[in-house]
Amino acid sequence: MQIVALKLVTIIAEAVLNDRLIRELKGMGAKGYTITQVRGEGSRGVRASDWEGQNVKIETLVSAVVADNILQHLADHYFTLYAVVAYVQTVEVVRGDKYT
Amino acid sequence: MQIVALKLVTIIAEAVLNDRLIRELKGMGAKGYTITQVRGEGSRGVRASDWEGQNVKIETLVSAVVADNILQHLADHYFTLYAVVAYVQTVEVVRGDKYT
Amino acid sequence: MQIVALKLVTIIAEAVLNDRLIRELKGMGAKGYTITQVRGEGSRGVRASDWEGQNVKIETLVSAVVADNILQHLADHYFTLYAVVAYVQTVEVVRGDKYT
Repeated sequence: MQIVALKLVTIIAEAVLNDRLIRELKGMGAKGYTITQVRGEGSRGVRASDWEGQNVKIETLVSAVVADNILQHLADHYFTLYAVVAYVQTVEVVRGDKYT
Repeated sequence: MQIVALKLVTIIAEAVLNDRLIRELKGMGAKGYTITQVRGEGSRGVRASDWEGQNVKIETLVSAVVADNILQHLADHYFTLYAVVAYVQTVEVVRGDKYT
Repeated sequence: MQIVALKLVTIIAEAVLNDRLIRELKGMGAKGYTITQVRGEGSRGVRASDWEGQNVKIETLVSAVVADNILQHLADHYFTLYAVVAYVQTVEVVRGDKYT
């Protein structure tokens, strides 16, 4: 059993951004993803008021390089305009070659 | 792109505790949170029998100090009375100043 | 407040595998679990085409030994036949004795 360290990238965004984000993640090299319907509240993005409502949590297992590219992409194109949260964790995966 | 290490606190509890927990998290300094409807089973709290049913998973990104305060609060006020699970992970976040 | 490091094992699988996986996790020593309905897409397992549809995310807090056993079990019995993703993270838990 081969264990490999990969990056789990988690993105929380308004549901309306889901399809666009998935398309962009694939374009940056993500081989798969998981989407969870969530509710949230926060104070991020250009909205003057806090937002509260239906969001999606998108999770994808990728290499460290792809994880960095995703964070940079979100920082460049989303964080000043949208209420998007993103964070990265290191996880241990079996059969890591399936994800990179 | 500035990457900051923050704490992701995850709390799993009966759905009836959701609003109270959110209010308390905000009072301890959490700036945002994500709620997921989940199902679970476990053997925790005062219930003699295992519980199985509708729960919520509450996740919040906070500083290490706030994470410690949340865990201590849960230990003091919940763990002997309610079926509550809580754990903390270190995650890498872009724009960490939004959360502390 | 006693903090213990435990393993959070996450399994993402087709919903039809949920009950079987839960039964097997319990048999390997998992004391509790959380199930989330998710959607996903990936290219894993024997299916020639990508799969997209209703999945479950199963999460369980266990000891390092049980986590290894779970991954080995999945590698032996699932990964060549089913579209199953599994990964492990180290988390800090209060009252860790409840889980092992």
